[in-house]
Amino acid sequence: MNYKMIGRINALILYIAAIFMLPALLISLFCRESRTAGAFGVSMLVTAAAASLLMLLCGKAQKRFYAREGLVCVGLCWIVISLFGALPLYLSGEFPAYIDALFEITSGFTTTGASVCLNVEELSRGVLYWRSFSHWLGGMGVLVFVLAIIPINGKTDGFSVHLLRAESPGPDTSKLVPRMRQTAAISYLIYIVLTVLDVVVLCIGGMPFFDALCTAFGTAGTGGFGTRADSIASFNPFIQNTCTVFMLLFGVNFTCYFLALRRQFKAVLFDEELRFYLGEFALATILFSVLIYRTYPTLGEAIRHSAFTTSSIMTTTGFVTADFDKWPTLAKAALLLLMLGGACAGSTGGGIKARRSLILIKSLRRNVHQYLHPNRVQSIRVNGKPLDETVVRNTNIFFTAYILIIAASFLVISADRFSLTTSFASVMACINNIGPGLEVCGPIGNYAAFSVVSKVVLILDMLIGRLEIFPILVLFSRSTWKRL
Amino acid sequence: MNYKMIGRINALILYIAAIFMLPALLISLFCRESRTAGAFGVSMLVTAAAASLLMLLCGKAQKRFYAREGLVCVGLCWIVISLFGALPLYLSGEFPAYIDALFEITSGFTTTGASVCLNVEELSRGVLYWRSFSHWLGGMGVLVFVLAIIPINGKTDGFSVHLLRAESPGPDTSKLVPRMRQTAAISYLIYIVLTVLDVVVLCIGGMPFFDALCTAFGTAGTGGFGTRADSIASFNPFIQNTCTVFMLLFGVNFTCYFLALRRQFKAVLFDEELRFYLGEFALATILFSVLIYRTYPTLGEAIRHSAFTTSSIMTTTGFVTADFDKWPTLAKAALLLLMLGGACAGSTGGGIKARRSLILIKSLRRNVHQYLHPNRVQSIRVNGKPLDETVVRNTNIFFTAYILIIAASFLVISADRFSLTTSFASVMACINNIGPGLEVCGPIGNYAAFSVVSKVVLILDMLIGRLEIFPILVLFSRSTWKRL
Repeated sequence: MNYKMIGRINALILYIAAIFMLPALLISLFCRESRTAGAFGVSMLVTAAAASLLMLLCGKAQKRFYAREGLVCVGLCWIVISLFGALPLYLSGEFPAYIDALFEITSGFTTTGASVCLNVEELSRGVLYWRSFSHWLGGMGVLVFVLAIIPINGKTDGFSVHLLRAESPGPDTSKLVPRMRQTAAISYLIYIVLTVLDVVVLCIGGMPFFDALCTAFGTAGTGGFGTRADSIASFNPFIQNTCTVFMLLFGVNFTCYFLALRRQFKAVLFDEELRFYLGEFALATILFSVLIYRTYPTLGEAIRHSAFTTSSIMTTTGFVTADFDKWPTLAKAALLLLMLGGACAGSTGGGIKARRSLILIKSLRRNVHQYLHPNRVQSIRVNGKPLDETVVRNTNIFFTAYILIIAASFLVISADRFSLTTSFASVMACINNIGPGLEVCGPIGNYAAFSVVSKVVLILDMLIGRLEIFPILVLFSRSTWKRL
Repeated sequence: MNYKMIGRINALILYIAAIFMLPALLISLFCRESRTAGAFGVSMLVTAAAASLLMLLCGKAQKRFYAREGLVCVGLCWIVISLFGALPLYLSGEFPAYIDALFEITSGFTTTGASVCLNVEELSRGVLYWRSFSHWLGGMGVLVFVLAIIPINGKTDGFSVHLLRAESPGPDTSKLVPRMRQTAAISYLIYIVLTVLDVVVLCIGGMPFFDALCTAFGTAGTGGFGTRADSIASFNPFIQNTCTVFMLLFGVNFTCYFLALRRQFKAVLFDEELRFYLGEFALATILFSVLIYRTYPTLGEAIRHSAFTTSSIMTTTGFVTADFDKWPTLAKAALLLLMLGGACAGSTGGGIKARRSLILIKSLRRNVHQYLHPNRVQSIRVNGKPLDETVVRNTNIFFTAYILIIAASFLVISADRFSLTTSFASVMACINNIGPGLEVCGPIGNYAAFSVVSKVVLILDMLIGRLEIFPILVLFSRSTWKRL
């Protein structure tokens, strides 16, 4: 194991975290939140000092860097940035316990948006900004960011492949362009343009700039932290519809935007995952509209809330305009399944991803055919191209692992003596990086009442969901730490 | 597709069903239940007539019989025997709607034990016997029975492999002896001996003979229909403990008994699946005892109920001595997971089977290792022997299919507007062939209040669970009915 290199990359991540705390510090100063400003100042110093110490300890590293190192490095980076990112929240005094601050900021970086905060409106501007910004950074990926801007040791393509693969969501990582660094840079460019566009439209809709910025961060990262206790419910319909559209946009595979920029519109239009994703959105919106239209004064309003909720849950954002915990059982069951499905691969969203659902359904159909005609060889095709069998197999194992982790987490959380629904929904909301669950942790609830053990499990679930299981799982495997 | 042969086998199954209605008819006559006796008489005639008609229509069949035919045949046989087996329940007037009678008897044949009956004690003896006997027949397998006693067309090994494979539970069917027919006969012999033993011990414990017979049928098939409304709760502790032990025994892979008879005790003792199964039993019993011991006067009583409930749920029998719906959330969550796990492969129990759980866990561990060391070839071993990769892959796909079917069924059932817990537990209790779920369909509840659509879905779930998905799934696949 190339510990030195892993240490150096972790140090880099910490430097970046410290630098990104600066805007939050400035906002706090500007808004005269002295305690919060102090908290950010101290956190910056501590984080930078830790980074420097780590850099010193690691010295010059060898270049050997394999898949194993990539996985461990990504897993550790996310844990480390969460541990230090929680500092300002804790030091500001706005989160009384460190575990709560850690829960909140891990929820931020993993773009979950699950909160332990009883009243968001009491938080200082600096903390609000930092929470929301963590969504934005975590959405596209912390290490992807590093790769995009910093040339580590000159030639980076060797290990950037391993890092990018471990951090990027989806069953198979596709490079937009041959060089990894450029892929990362292009992704971030599209990301930034879309975010700026979102801020502008929200401002046009009448949202104050600070709220628009935070909301756009939450939308872009498919996170879900907002600036108000009732999330987006008290903003006007134009703003709500803007969020619906932008959430949906950020749940699309970024490769589609890249292809569109290259004028390959046909490839985008016939992309099976995109069609599956939009079909799911349309179906669920219709279902919810039918189920809830009697509880709203007009059909238009019912459709607006249905589309917003579908978009929010499917893309795993977690913004709220309607208390779906009060919807009929069928709607809640459908929401739980939408949570699991999640957004497209290669987007900022969570869940198992539409592409994996597609592969699972196709592999199941093939299995039925194989039972019927054992001697015929059949391959699975997505977008007309046959899929590598390793991808098919790994997708099945991924799903198994996902379900087993959900089951195990559910078991631990249920020791808290909340209802089965609360326990299950909390796990689903965290591992799929949604945020709001049902009942206690529902749209108008929060995670404050959960025990410390449950919070730790949910934090791990958020990381497992964001990093797609294996970068976290390998940290707990004995054979990772064995000498070869 | 060899329709004629499939028709002939279905006709055979119907003859057998008609013959097995005779004891129920005699019991009804003996107990002077004239209407029930009439119902069985008419049902026997109708069933035998249908069988004869089918036999006539099919004429002499070709011998071509492939996996496809095997799957379709098993799926159809189980549906057909349920459709006709429901007749006496409906004609006796004790089940007002045919769909209820069908639900009850499919629940019987699939060894689920889920009931729509409001008060079991009002049922006639004839119906009680028929319900319980259906467990016994369905437990080891209707077609296995046919194979064990009837030499179809002289040389049977050709297609009996396909039939047995489709009906027997587990990821890989192991023959006890080279010839399939003998394997079936030996399995049934062990089954009969254990059932008789159970009846004897229950009678010694003071249970009336009729109750002992029905209870033994329910135990042997891991079904769960009993003769009292409170299941086993009002019988004495000796009887309850007897049930605990025998449920556990019938959940063991019958290969173990065969090996024990051949004095290969070492192979039995070191069988990984058996150890996994017994370990699960011990762990869950301890967990439940700790969680509920305060609600019972003595620790001994708490242990008795914990062991009974664990054994009943793990083996997917579904007998009840304690209302576990009132247990703490953690216990209920653990019970839901035990439901899914189920009994051993090659037993009469349902669920995904301990052997599959074992393979899933091992394949997940291997996947982690493969991520770490991509170039190393690793095989999965069970009992020291490397497992065929096809089995590993199929087990993963099986699990995926299982979860997807649970999810889809849950969605449909939740349209009934029961709680999420009721909806989910009903699907879990039916697909895993348990019987009692939670809340409305819990230990003291039943399935009477579910809508017709939900009942049909749950009936399909029971069949899917008992036949391990594919024999039912292929019936709905277009390519099954295509000409080659």
